[in-house]
Amino acid sequence: MKDVNVGVIGLGNVGSGALAILNTNAEQIAQKLGFRLRVAAVCSRSVASLNLPDVPVDALRTADWRDVVTHPEVDVVVELVGGTGVAKEMLDGAIANRKSIITANKELMALEGADIWDRAIKAGINLAMEASVAGGIPIHTVLREGISGDRIVAIAGILNGTSNYILTEMERRGDSFDQVLAEAQALGYAEADPTADVDGYDARSKLAILSALAFGERITPGDIFVEGIRRITAQDFDYAHQLGHTIRLVCSAQQTERGLMLSVRPALIPQSTILAGVKGAYNAVWVKGHFGADTFYYGRGAGPNPTGVAVVSDLMRVAREIRSGSPERVSPFAHERLGVYRPVSITQQHRPYYLRFRVDDRPGIIAELAGILASKRIGLEAVLQLPCDTKHDLPFVITVESTSELAIREATEQMSKLDFLREPPLALPMEPPL
Amino acid sequence: MKDVNVGVIGLGNVGSGALAILNTNAEQIAQKLGFRLRVAAVCSRSVASLNLPDVPVDALRTADWRDVVTHPEVDVVVELVGGTGVAKEMLDGAIANRKSIITANKELMALEGADIWDRAIKAGINLAMEASVAGGIPIHTVLREGISGDRIVAIAGILNGTSNYILTEMERRGDSFDQVLAEAQALGYAEADPTADVDGYDARSKLAILSALAFGERITPGDIFVEGIRRITAQDFDYAHQLGHTIRLVCSAQQTERGLMLSVRPALIPQSTILAGVKGAYNAVWVKGHFGADTFYYGRGAGPNPTGVAVVSDLMRVAREIRSGSPERVSPFAHERLGVYRPVSITQQHRPYYLRFRVDDRPGIIAELAGILASKRIGLEAVLQLPCDTKHDLPFVITVESTSELAIREATEQMSKLDFLREPPLALPMEPPL
Repeated sequence: MKDVNVGVIGLGNVGSGALAILNTNAEQIAQKLGFRLRVAAVCSRSVASLNLPDVPVDALRTADWRDVVTHPEVDVVVELVGGTGVAKEMLDGAIANRKSIITANKELMALEGADIWDRAIKAGINLAMEASVAGGIPIHTVLREGISGDRIVAIAGILNGTSNYILTEMERRGDSFDQVLAEAQALGYAEADPTADVDGYDARSKLAILSALAFGERITPGDIFVEGIRRITAQDFDYAHQLGHTIRLVCSAQQTERGLMLSVRPALIPQSTILAGVKGAYNAVWVKGHFGADTFYYGRGAGPNPTGVAVVSDLMRVAREIRSGSPERVSPFAHERLGVYRPVSITQQHRPYYLRFRVDDRPGIIAELAGILASKRIGLEAVLQLPCDTKHDLPFVITVESTSELAIREATEQMSKLDFLREPPLALPMEPPL
Repeated sequence: MKDVNVGVIGLGNVGSGALAILNTNAEQIAQKLGFRLRVAAVCSRSVASLNLPDVPVDALRTADWRDVVTHPEVDVVVELVGGTGVAKEMLDGAIANRKSIITANKELMALEGADIWDRAIKAGINLAMEASVAGGIPIHTVLREGISGDRIVAIAGILNGTSNYILTEMERRGDSFDQVLAEAQALGYAEADPTADVDGYDARSKLAILSALAFGERITPGDIFVEGIRRITAQDFDYAHQLGHTIRLVCSAQQTERGLMLSVRPALIPQSTILAGVKGAYNAVWVKGHFGADTFYYGRGAGPNPTGVAVVSDLMRVAREIRSGSPERVSPFAHERLGVYRPVSITQQHRPYYLRFRVDDRPGIIAELAGILASKRIGLEAVLQLPCDTKHDLPFVITVESTSELAIREATEQMSKLDFLREPPLALPMEPPL
């Protein structure tokens, strides 16, 4: 059978990883497919200065991405540039030229994936985006094929490796957020501007894509409640452990009677839970199916090689579809079309909560805080104070029985006005065991 | 697009589960596929006495499977009978009539999957067997598609839910193997004849199939070393915990320089490892890829609904392939064809070992045992004895440094002749952290 020709745009970490895998595993890939994947064109702004040991000598090397999307031999365009600017033009160009597309672009697919997919279907091409979420975990394949017969009830994931690395290092060493972040930046694990990672926006894009796949809905990322990890302290881990829990940045999507409830936020999760075992730069996705019950998927969140495997595996599937003449027919962003997507505000979520205070100690503090909780009909569960040698800036924790996020917000807003508080209370939901 | 018509043979637990899912999720499945899956025929020896609420009124109900495989409307035959007898005739009949096949038959696919697959390819049909291994985990889809670009270096799994339930209940409650087995039998979790589950043969079939998929080789199940869990005691868990480990029935496949090393056996695994968190009737598969590094997959091992999801998801994929006219082209049992499959004897495996003795205590026992270990050049690591109130039938443990399975076998055989031993030593390998 005829080769399938590939054009790769973007030769950074992931691009180099994918090219190395295509080259190293070429024989095995040909055996699995019954034909070869041939790299026909590569593109990078700095292509002239790159070594490119894994690119065939007869492949086009260009600094202009238009040369790739218009290349007469190229069947599949691999977009590894990222962002919502020129990458969008590249995908538009590929669609206009009826080239199939592999992309790792979470931001673009989260924002415009539904439209891009619709246009790809109209153009009669194939599209794949496994590398856009949880690089090393084939979660798209799982949701689109592996458990496609089921209906998904809920998903919970750890989808940002950098923030998980920071949290689990804080937990392990007892260091502060700032210390661990600075170190992660020095080691190149975190960006100079860490906002996307530590404030939850990167995870939010990924949750938007996963939820679209899981629930067959067009998700608007801006509808997803997002809260980052900057306020978590090493002491919060001490208190969480005391309660048999740990803290992770949890991406959560739940089908409720009123619609879909979506959030990215730090939460307490029981230490007995399999999600609590996810440490360092790993990612994980827990899926609750209506029929299949619990399944759990774990792997590297990023990195040239794990993400490269996602790109190459996508290429193999799409190449098979191209050779069998079966373009995409159903969009993963709207495959259910059974109802209108109704985002449900996180304020309606019910959970037990962990409330951590920093106070200048004086008599009557607990009474005042408990009074506010009682006025919102929030049941107090426990008061915890670990040994501490100061009366100033004293941390302690109150846990409360299951209540609504709305009630907690009203209570903590009122508490924030109290003069003995050094900062507004930190409120973290306590997730049930997964 | 035209419906795809399905014939289901075998209406037990899994068959009922699959039919319920096909019925309940019919709209959603149609949206995902762009056409409908229609149950056109069902077959069971006791079909006359069955209620079958999920079978359409116009479907053929028959007690003769030949009616299904020769049914002119049926596109796909779902074989849920199991075993290597009549089930083989059914698959032969389906192939002869050019019907595509979904099967959950681990025993048959482990033994004859490579041949069945070759004949399916010649007949131009599609074949899927997700439900044959780890019912609730879409591990076939993951290996064949999700991470198909990678080369697999090793897999380690917990593939038998019954034995994992027994081991983790022994661990949790401190009860004996016999007690927990009897209870599991009373509850219907274990068969009256538990051999296939507790002696490792069920897990061996599953490992044979997974290894075929992972390594692209034809595996002979008889080449896989197998040892069951009957000799494990509650005290072994106490000792394992003392060593920071637990005990699981581990299915292991490793690519070595000399070939593939395969085993199903109880082993000590570090408690910090993600595999150690797999409890009850759950299954899990850990995969080490050359490029993708570690990935881990977890879910229900069996049950009508999880396994039903696997069957229905397979049906959806195969139905898509039928409608796009792309029959199977490459067998998952021989996709690499890059070398001849050479099974490597487990005797060549090197591991630290846990040796547990039951002795009638007297002076000089340790010296004699240590002498035998020294004569085989096996380095002693530690001697452990938990408090015990008897000198008769006294358990204690010796751990040894990494050595070959062959050396351990020679040593334990020699030890078995010592008169103070109540039973031959129990030797369990200590697996590295996964």
